[in-house]
Amino acid sequence: MNNNTPLYVGIDGGGSKCSAMLFNAQGVVLSQGIAGSANAARDFAKTLQSIVESVQLALVNAGFSAEYMPHLQVGAGLAGACVPSVNQQLKAWQHPFASFAVSSDLMTASYAAHAGKDGALLIVGTGSSAARMQNHKLKQFGGHGFVLGDKGSGAWFGRAAISSTLEALDGLIPLSDLHDMVLNKLGINSSADLVQTMINASPSEFAAFAPDIIELAKLNDLSALSLVKEGAAYLDKLCLRTLHDTSLSLVLMGGLAPSIEPWFSPALRERIVSSHAGPEWGAMRLLQTPQLMAC
Amino acid sequence: MNNNTPLYVGIDGGGSKCSAMLFNAQGVVLSQGIAGSANAARDFAKTLQSIVESVQLALVNAGFSAEYMPHLQVGAGLAGACVPSVNQQLKAWQHPFASFAVSSDLMTASYAAHAGKDGALLIVGTGSSAARMQNHKLKQFGGHGFVLGDKGSGAWFGRAAISSTLEALDGLIPLSDLHDMVLNKLGINSSADLVQTMINASPSEFAAFAPDIIELAKLNDLSALSLVKEGAAYLDKLCLRTLHDTSLSLVLMGGLAPSIEPWFSPALRERIVSSHAGPEWGAMRLLQTPQLMAC
Repeated sequence: MNNNTPLYVGIDGGGSKCSAMLFNAQGVVLSQGIAGSANAARDFAKTLQSIVESVQLALVNAGFSAEYMPHLQVGAGLAGACVPSVNQQLKAWQHPFASFAVSSDLMTASYAAHAGKDGALLIVGTGSSAARMQNHKLKQFGGHGFVLGDKGSGAWFGRAAISSTLEALDGLIPLSDLHDMVLNKLGINSSADLVQTMINASPSEFAAFAPDIIELAKLNDLSALSLVKEGAAYLDKLCLRTLHDTSLSLVLMGGLAPSIEPWFSPALRERIVSSHAGPEWGAMRLLQTPQLMAC
Repeated sequence: MNNNTPLYVGIDGGGSKCSAMLFNAQGVVLSQGIAGSANAARDFAKTLQSIVESVQLALVNAGFSAEYMPHLQVGAGLAGACVPSVNQQLKAWQHPFASFAVSSDLMTASYAAHAGKDGALLIVGTGSSAARMQNHKLKQFGGHGFVLGDKGSGAWFGRAAISSTLEALDGLIPLSDLHDMVLNKLGINSSADLVQTMINASPSEFAAFAPDIIELAKLNDLSALSLVKEGAAYLDKLCLRTLHDTSLSLVLMGGLAPSIEPWFSPALRERIVSSHAGPEWGAMRLLQTPQLMAC
């Protein structure tokens, strides 16, 4: 295989990691490379670095040299890519590839979820957001990032558990297993240390607490239960709003999807179907479907 | 008056402003200088700058030259000053004064509230926190900063109103006067613009929405009402926890105190008394009461 063989890359980038998949012209996956966080609205420079690293790793894992880079057709779906100022910066990027098409992770994942057909999607991992795709047009619901939105996401669960722990240490609510879990995980036993350790934590550092929180809710810890019910109720409402007045089906994606799904209402659960493909496939398809690049 | 005349400065620094008051040896206020934000945990360099600027302004306002600076005895109560790493940095500061004593804004305000006697304090401005002072020892409740705590504060109200506006624009809750107020104040009408404008906003930028939110709650706007009830209920609980098992009285301080007080429970309201002095007076007293410098 020489440098003239067409090779395609699809990238899925979010708060916790950046995944690049290498495809041949027939759409067959050749390899994957995974690098660090790639939320373009949160840390632009880090996002570009994660993109390049994940592509390099994918090349290496398929047995290609890094010299192949300028010949790659790259499509990327990135968290934060549709914030207007961020989108401008991404489109102005002097990338090292043959071509680079970019949209939001929600756009590329929605396309992948239903193989380009109409349908709805909830992504719930470090962040959370939902979308309805109809005639290749995407309408987003929720999201809005860690500071202002992303309710029911891993980062939201983690931050809420830390806040709850601080309230318990203040004596405002009873100490429960949830708070013990937070303090044990960090090896901490005072409010001052907890604040100092977590005040500048990233969304993915907060999200690392989410699996344990959902596990404790299953064991009926009241504090964990209250958080999981609140987060799941929001996501349930968000999905029903996204599906509103349609008969579309819903795909769930993201690291937290399997553990949060059992908390959804029966009416929502019966709309859920499996995904056609992973989000990297949708990102790769950006190259052939330019209308998806609209934000 | 020459450079040998003893002059004292008390500083109260928080998320929105830094206030320096100049006192003579008899404790009489000679002047005040106000500079920018001084939350030492949030922006250390800016805090030092605000301290120096506010002192310079206080000197100018009393008719002294800046040459007086190295002769000043300065005490400061600063938001974030008791976060352990921040406290170390503050104590290592090569300040331009004759002496510099520092503690948390909560410590100096508590001392001022009850003239050094036992009592409780709630500060609710850009941030929120409460404290109980007994035998010159302070026990803090609440606080913990914008990201993890400070519920019921101006910044918390503002951020909650922005999040509520995003939910209304998503069609998850009915649009109300609260959301119109947010959008009109920013001259914005889309989620994307709202996120882009506010995603990196400072606590004091969020807090700027708080007075209007409380005003709309008085007019029975349901969204505003729900936020104000939630914030006030937390602060009420926080104060009752702070007063727990004592007969101490409570002082309210901070820009939001007068407008939030009517939302407190009758049991709490009957414990509230007026403050003996402003927080700058308490900060000035740090110089004569070194045990207050414990964090």
